[in-house]
Amino acid sequence: MGSTCHNIAKAYGWWLILKALPKRSAEAAAEIAISMVNLAKDDPRRVIHSIKVGLALTLVSLFYYFQPLYDDFGVSAMWAVVTVVVVFEFSVGATLGKGLNRAMATLLAGVLGLGAYRLASLCGKIGEPLLIASFVFLQAAVSTFMRFFPNIKARYDYGFLIFMLTFCIVSITGYRQNEIWELAHKRLSTIVIGGFASLLVSIFVYPVWAGEDLHNLVALNVEKLGSFLEGFGIAYFNIPDELAKDDKSFLRGYRSVLNSKNIEEALANFARWEPAHGQYRFGHPWKKYLEVGALIRQCAYRIDALNGYLVPDIQATVETSEEIREACVKMSLESGAVLKELASALRAMTQSPTSVDARLASSKAAAKSLKLPLLGSASWEDVELVKVIPLATVASLLMDTVDCTEKIAAAFHDLASQAHFKKIEHSPLSDKSQTAFQTASENQISSSRDDCPHAVILLGEITPVTNTVNGDSIEALSGQHV
Amino acid sequence: MGSTCHNIAKAYGWWLILKALPKRSAEAAAEIAISMVNLAKDDPRRVIHSIKVGLALTLVSLFYYFQPLYDDFGVSAMWAVVTVVVVFEFSVGATLGKGLNRAMATLLAGVLGLGAYRLASLCGKIGEPLLIASFVFLQAAVSTFMRFFPNIKARYDYGFLIFMLTFCIVSITGYRQNEIWELAHKRLSTIVIGGFASLLVSIFVYPVWAGEDLHNLVALNVEKLGSFLEGFGIAYFNIPDELAKDDKSFLRGYRSVLNSKNIEEALANFARWEPAHGQYRFGHPWKKYLEVGALIRQCAYRIDALNGYLVPDIQATVETSEEIREACVKMSLESGAVLKELASALRAMTQSPTSVDARLASSKAAAKSLKLPLLGSASWEDVELVKVIPLATVASLLMDTVDCTEKIAAAFHDLASQAHFKKIEHSPLSDKSQTAFQTASENQISSSRDDCPHAVILLGEITPVTNTVNGDSIEALSGQHV
Repeated sequence: MGSTCHNIAKAYGWWLILKALPKRSAEAAAEIAISMVNLAKDDPRRVIHSIKVGLALTLVSLFYYFQPLYDDFGVSAMWAVVTVVVVFEFSVGATLGKGLNRAMATLLAGVLGLGAYRLASLCGKIGEPLLIASFVFLQAAVSTFMRFFPNIKARYDYGFLIFMLTFCIVSITGYRQNEIWELAHKRLSTIVIGGFASLLVSIFVYPVWAGEDLHNLVALNVEKLGSFLEGFGIAYFNIPDELAKDDKSFLRGYRSVLNSKNIEEALANFARWEPAHGQYRFGHPWKKYLEVGALIRQCAYRIDALNGYLVPDIQATVETSEEIREACVKMSLESGAVLKELASALRAMTQSPTSVDARLASSKAAAKSLKLPLLGSASWEDVELVKVIPLATVASLLMDTVDCTEKIAAAFHDLASQAHFKKIEHSPLSDKSQTAFQTASENQISSSRDDCPHAVILLGEITPVTNTVNGDSIEALSGQHV
Repeated sequence: MGSTCHNIAKAYGWWLILKALPKRSAEAAAEIAISMVNLAKDDPRRVIHSIKVGLALTLVSLFYYFQPLYDDFGVSAMWAVVTVVVVFEFSVGATLGKGLNRAMATLLAGVLGLGAYRLASLCGKIGEPLLIASFVFLQAAVSTFMRFFPNIKARYDYGFLIFMLTFCIVSITGYRQNEIWELAHKRLSTIVIGGFASLLVSIFVYPVWAGEDLHNLVALNVEKLGSFLEGFGIAYFNIPDELAKDDKSFLRGYRSVLNSKNIEEALANFARWEPAHGQYRFGHPWKKYLEVGALIRQCAYRIDALNGYLVPDIQATVETSEEIREACVKMSLESGAVLKELASALRAMTQSPTSVDARLASSKAAAKSLKLPLLGSASWEDVELVKVIPLATVASLLMDTVDCTEKIAAAFHDLASQAHFKKIEHSPLSDKSQTAFQTASENQISSSRDDCPHAVILLGEITPVTNTVNGDSIEALSGQHV
């Protein structure tokens, strides 16, 4: 009786699972669909890229559909398909780099493989396989070892792989087939056809330029740090801000900057393969972007340390830090504004505006002025000194970021002159807005003693440059190159 | 006359260049040879790996040498060569992952490609190529899009590539050749043979395990931070140190930790493919290493900020900071020692020794005690306060690193229990050495007021664990996986 009950219960359990199955799989399918839509929304270029790959492959399969072409190439036309699948990458630079690597390596390895085969064939029935085996062994070992060189790894890794592969196929197949010339010729020409199909589609159908991605990524990273710094002072000192967004996500944006090294290096390597396009001439100083990127990361490490002080229980209360607050807020605001202006200038491909120098000077003055209240203050003994340590740290880290900002500005100046960015005319408008900023900024600083809300309304006015931050998408997109 | 002179001068110039050519190329060759030797010295496993690749390729070419094998497979044996070249990676995990991806994708795409071909062949002369073209387009677009998913990209990227490739070849070739079954079968079996050859050589000839690399990399990174912290206090406060090495490279070692994220993630992905080996069981918690790694990097960002204060002109002079110095040196020493002990425990795969808790408590006590001199100090007004800001920052950052150290210790504890690391017995020896450390440490701290050199001699005695740091080599080595 108990056993029957148990069996019934078991069957009921199974029935429940089976009944839930369609619902569950429907849920899973919906989840997958949602994440696919999000992936596409994050960067619509992904969808376009997928369609481009399909297009290039369908193009190449024409070799099979049209009799005359097929008669020429036969089964070798398969190599064109393989080439498209393997070579077609997200950006033009990556596609071009892989295609050139593949073509050059195939050519070189074809010639050397033929030479090895001819040399071996002079050595008689027993000598031939032995000699070929030792050639294969030697070149495989040497090529594999060469791939460990960092410089070769970065740009020619795929070429060495294909060299190894083609050399083996040509020299070994030579031992068996006597159509070795034909094999080498067919393989090379089908690879060239596949490579060209990929390249044409890659360049002429909504091209994605790695160089442009690198340019935008660096600008975005500078802007993220700028947003953090602009928001930090207000958030740290709990200045009531009427215009402040509830959304504090701009304080987290800098995190993706911390690990941007590999993406930037990969993009710079791809960019070096790309021809002149748009505003980027041939020989655009891509390496300079890496220098700017390194300085940005250095600044981001300081900002990560700063971010640790945004925890309520160690956050400074406004009362205890009257004197230092002004200087800190000014440093944070001004260096944030400098970074945002640099980001805008980079996006617009112009030299840095003159206001950058003024703001840098102003933030440095604030850093200097910070030492005076500390020196002259008589109120140190009244204050609980435990509260001073984190505040002094914040001040000191902000002084560090001011230094970093200065370095970034200098590196940007270098980049801008090497890349021949346009000089912007000293327009009356920019003068005016600069003066307006300074007045507003001074108002803010001086008035913040009396009434913070008013100060912060001004603050909202003086930072009109808000670009849409679309970091994750660029990051994820570039991640695929690595 | 002038023109003749000019021509002679020009010819002489060319002659000089030609004369220098052999010397220059000899120099270039020597340079390359030296860098090759260095590359091999940095990590001898590179040489072994190169030889292994040569071996596997030579093994596979046996298919061509021996008549019976050749008769079975014909030209398809080429796929075995291709598989070895493409699949053979530095570590077992990467090789296994690529091999499985390749085999499974070929099988699946072969079956689906055949199905597509059969379906299309029902549609008549005109429908067939159209249907096949649309199948090719659809699967290429969908597969390419799927490769954008971060999870798929991390583990199955190569599988999707091969799926695309095989599906195209099988379905297109089907349109032309009627030996499609044979093609699919031959391609799959040669790939399996090539994959097995790679795998056997990879596993049985000096295997390189990605898991072990990850394990060692994390241990090395923890140790690097430990070395920095142990050395920082002494270097910052300019404590004369008789035993101090002139070589301050240990203060730079932490830098490679800053950008270790991608390497660690790649290694963890490879490690998940690997079977149980050595002390690593199946299901070893590789993901936990990533958590520890993230905390290590967080600590490294603080250390990068700290490192900025090791510049002579902002370095604290011993006189101004008598009270804080002790606490700072203690925090830096103790947390450094904790990290080094954790690194040793990780290397030995044991639970963290009890001394870790004692040291953590001691460093936290030092952090707490730091607040007391600051609170009680009457000497603040005598001191130049400008000098206090950097010092307060250093103290505060050190307090942060103490927090980080605690988190790292907790994460290590988690890892150790999940990975079933051995518990170390509470041996009398470790008790003794612990007591010795504490006494020495206390001596050091209390005596540092009077005579620093003596204190630092003790310091040399209490940190006997010095493992060889071989970071660059591991880093470069792992870099190839990315």
